[in-house]
Amino acid sequence: MENIGVVFLSELVGTAMLVLLGTGVVANVALAKNKGLGGGFLMVTIGWGFAVFAGVLVSLNSGSHLNPAVTLGLVAAGTDEFGSDVPVNVTSVLVYIAGQMLGAILGAVFCWLAYKQHFDAEPEPANKLGVFSTGPAIRSYGWNLVTEAIGTFVLVFVILAFGGWGDGGGLAALGPLPVAILVIVIGTSLGGPTGYAINPARDLGPRIAHFILPIKGKGSSDWSYSWVPVVGPIIGGVVAGWASLVLLPVV
Amino acid sequence: MENIGVVFLSELVGTAMLVLLGTGVVANVALAKNKGLGGGFLMVTIGWGFAVFAGVLVSLNSGSHLNPAVTLGLVAAGTDEFGSDVPVNVTSVLVYIAGQMLGAILGAVFCWLAYKQHFDAEPEPANKLGVFSTGPAIRSYGWNLVTEAIGTFVLVFVILAFGGWGDGGGLAALGPLPVAILVIVIGTSLGGPTGYAINPARDLGPRIAHFILPIKGKGSSDWSYSWVPVVGPIIGGVVAGWASLVLLPVV
Amino acid sequence: MENIGVVFLSELVGTAMLVLLGTGVVANVALAKNKGLGGGFLMVTIGWGFAVFAGVLVSLNSGSHLNPAVTLGLVAAGTDEFGSDVPVNVTSVLVYIAGQMLGAILGAVFCWLAYKQHFDAEPEPANKLGVFSTGPAIRSYGWNLVTEAIGTFVLVFVILAFGGWGDGGGLAALGPLPVAILVIVIGTSLGGPTGYAINPARDLGPRIAHFILPIKGKGSSDWSYSWVPVVGPIIGGVVAGWASLVLLPVV
Amino acid sequence: MENIGVVFLSELVGTAMLVLLGTGVVANVALAKNKGLGGGFLMVTIGWGFAVFAGVLVSLNSGSHLNPAVTLGLVAAGTDEFGSDVPVNVTSVLVYIAGQMLGAILGAVFCWLAYKQHFDAEPEPANKLGVFSTGPAIRSYGWNLVTEAIGTFVLVFVILAFGGWGDGGGLAALGPLPVAILVIVIGTSLGGPTGYAINPARDLGPRIAHFILPIKGKGSSDWSYSWVPVVGPIIGGVVAGWASLVLLPVV
Repeated sequence: MENIGVVFLSELVGTAMLVLLGTGVVANVALAKNKGLGGGFLMVTIGWGFAVFAGVLVSLNSGSHLNPAVTLGLVAAGTDEFGSDVPVNVTSVLVYIAGQMLGAILGAVFCWLAYKQHFDAEPEPANKLGVFSTGPAIRSYGWNLVTEAIGTFVLVFVILAFGGWGDGGGLAALGPLPVAILVIVIGTSLGGPTGYAINPARDLGPRIAHFILPIKGKGSSDWSYSWVPVVGPIIGGVVAGWASLVLLPVV
Repeated sequence: MENIGVVFLSELVGTAMLVLLGTGVVANVALAKNKGLGGGFLMVTIGWGFAVFAGVLVSLNSGSHLNPAVTLGLVAAGTDEFGSDVPVNVTSVLVYIAGQMLGAILGAVFCWLAYKQHFDAEPEPANKLGVFSTGPAIRSYGWNLVTEAIGTFVLVFVILAFGGWGDGGGLAALGPLPVAILVIVIGTSLGGPTGYAINPARDLGPRIAHFILPIKGKGSSDWSYSWVPVVGPIIGGVVAGWASLVLLPVV
Repeated sequence: MENIGVVFLSELVGTAMLVLLGTGVVANVALAKNKGLGGGFLMVTIGWGFAVFAGVLVSLNSGSHLNPAVTLGLVAAGTDEFGSDVPVNVTSVLVYIAGQMLGAILGAVFCWLAYKQHFDAEPEPANKLGVFSTGPAIRSYGWNLVTEAIGTFVLVFVILAFGGWGDGGGLAALGPLPVAILVIVIGTSLGGPTGYAINPARDLGPRIAHFILPIKGKGSSDWSYSWVPVVGPIIGGVVAGWASLVLLPVV
Repeated sequence: MENIGVVFLSELVGTAMLVLLGTGVVANVALAKNKGLGGGFLMVTIGWGFAVFAGVLVSLNSGSHLNPAVTLGLVAAGTDEFGSDVPVNVTSVLVYIAGQMLGAILGAVFCWLAYKQHFDAEPEPANKLGVFSTGPAIRSYGWNLVTEAIGTFVLVFVILAFGGWGDGGGLAALGPLPVAILVIVIGTSLGGPTGYAINPARDLGPRIAHFILPIKGKGSSDWSYSWVPVVGPIIGGVVAGWASLVLLPVV
């Protein structure tokens, strides 16, 4: 596994890009005095979807997981190799997740820098945390977990279906567009109750950044909820991996 | 027809995915306290269009009909084979429709689970039914039927035109994107009067789920309207199949 | 020119599809009691763009002009052939335009049928005409003409640039998507003053339908403005054809 | 460098198209009496993204830089050739930038013509300048510079990542779509504080047009801010070029 450093860097860069642009659209819509203030939920879903598009583009070397739930879902599905020439084992899984976590923290830092004046101008602490991490519309850990698990199931299950289309089947030519569309529709359609973390790194990394950064007038980092967008997506991703073996037969 | 079980499973999984994400966007926009509440009609049409995109991606094995009106439209157009190696006969048609219906019911159940807290919090019964099934803006069974027939005609007629572009004609490379775009535009452009069921399974399956599920404070399932989004799409699909033979000559 | 009947049918069917879906999105946004009422300008531009997508898909046999300004722009650019095996001469130009005009009228009739109840329910005559044909935000024939000419210049000029990308250059694989995107952006960016007819058939055909159909409570068909969205697009299309010879050199 | 005239023309035409459509969407959303008035930030980002799409389509001969920050970023990344057969040297860089600047000025002039009546009808001078050039939501030259640099870093860094996907890697088939999506997401996600110039020519060219044109009731051209959307993008583009050498290893 000579290229493990390349893989780590690729996941780090890709997840940083994803999180910078994903948290950025929330900042634009939610923080005081922004030109996109009140831009609406559709704009947020398009921003996150295309954030994934950009993240995938810059992480070709690692096969663009950018999400521990994807990495673990691939393991559950019995994948032979991550990306090109990267074996699936405990070390590689940890390297992927480490790159994703560190990248997510860094992406959130750059979002804070890009929106520094607007974080300062925003009076409401909850809006500041909302840029970094998700929170439930109706707090109910059990049902919030169900929603996150279903959303991530859709993400990983559909990604695992890409393979069946083959290289010449009309999907490969779309590059990272299908996954971007998939993230948009998970947002529009399953994002209402919890804000669709569907990615432990995307949620926990920025929450750590929120905790550490000297953000003016920040409030709580809401650690009591923080496990839901970690555990829910992992459950959803792993179940999707298993389910794909039964529900997506290769014929 | 050894792979009839695979076809059944494929239609079931694809339609469940389509309906989960399609009904989900309506739930997000219409049910109390959701983050996407009031997200607007454009968001609904994008959600449904990309729901079809995801549904098609996971039902490659059956050629992704996901809609009895498409199945019957292909029959009317004199199609030789459904998907790969599946003959067109009464049995296969029934298997397709059975998979679609069961999948639609299951998809609606998962939508209810994902939005459980919001169904409970929503005071208006009509908004709850509206997540599952369509209803007319102005109730008039005859004209509602016309609108559904025209919308489904467009869906099936344009799908039948895909074939003429050939494998190398620049359409195959787009994978499921053209049908997603088509569903978006049918929504934006013909969805005003009836909410564009354009698919008997998509409407009747979730209506059955609404009838069966223990949804808090649910009202009527509006069975008196339920035949319109079944009969209208079938008429539109079959007429599109016949019309394609005249209006889409292969030259 | 044995296939002139095929070409006529193809332009008719394609333009009818374009106009049905294009006028439909305006009906949805503008007529009383529709589910998409007040859906906004972005939804209208996406509806029209994807209406063109659908129209192109069903008119492969004629090369999908669907617009006299495109046909005349191709003539001005010195094109050898329209679509496949159709020579460029006075007869073929007239056949294209006749198919486009008749298709546009028929498309508008189907839009009226799909939205019949909502045309009846709408109190404002100007909103009814607005579904069929464009009108200026600030009436000023000269400047309105300039805006329509610039919008159509962009349409035809960019379409003429497609050719330079070649079959393997990454544009052919997108099928009708580039022209749909182009129509969306002309709407968002040049549609404010006149509602971007950018197509004489798209505007005049539905205006004739509005004049003929027994629409309840319809007002004037505004014939005094009707020449602007005919002449403006023709000027823009022809100038684009000429300009392409100088500004888009093939190297 | 025999084709330097072709390159100049190509950059001029492409940047004029980009700026016409990009400034056009702001005019539509911001100037009095337009049909798209109040269309929202998402519509602006889609308009600018697809404006780039159209600009790229008409500037194939020069490789479609359309932006001095892209040109300088390619230099920083050690690119061998701009587009086809154009060497990288001081002369060619100056020719690219000259074509971009002149094109941007011309595009803004055409936007003014298309929206002439609406510039006249608009009472607020700041809205008129806002069509041409960007301005900060919260004026703070240092932080505004940071935001512009980060936005342009994303633009150039992701563009430089395209190359790694190779001709057969599923990205080439998308033609100019990835860069359009990228510009959309930079808008949604990093456009809040400064309106995302991310292109010195796009901002300075139209500002010069605003200064020169006889726009009724125009106010200041805000020259005190004008250096920020020039210097910020150049810093971001050049840093992206250098960073790509480390963060996007070719393996």
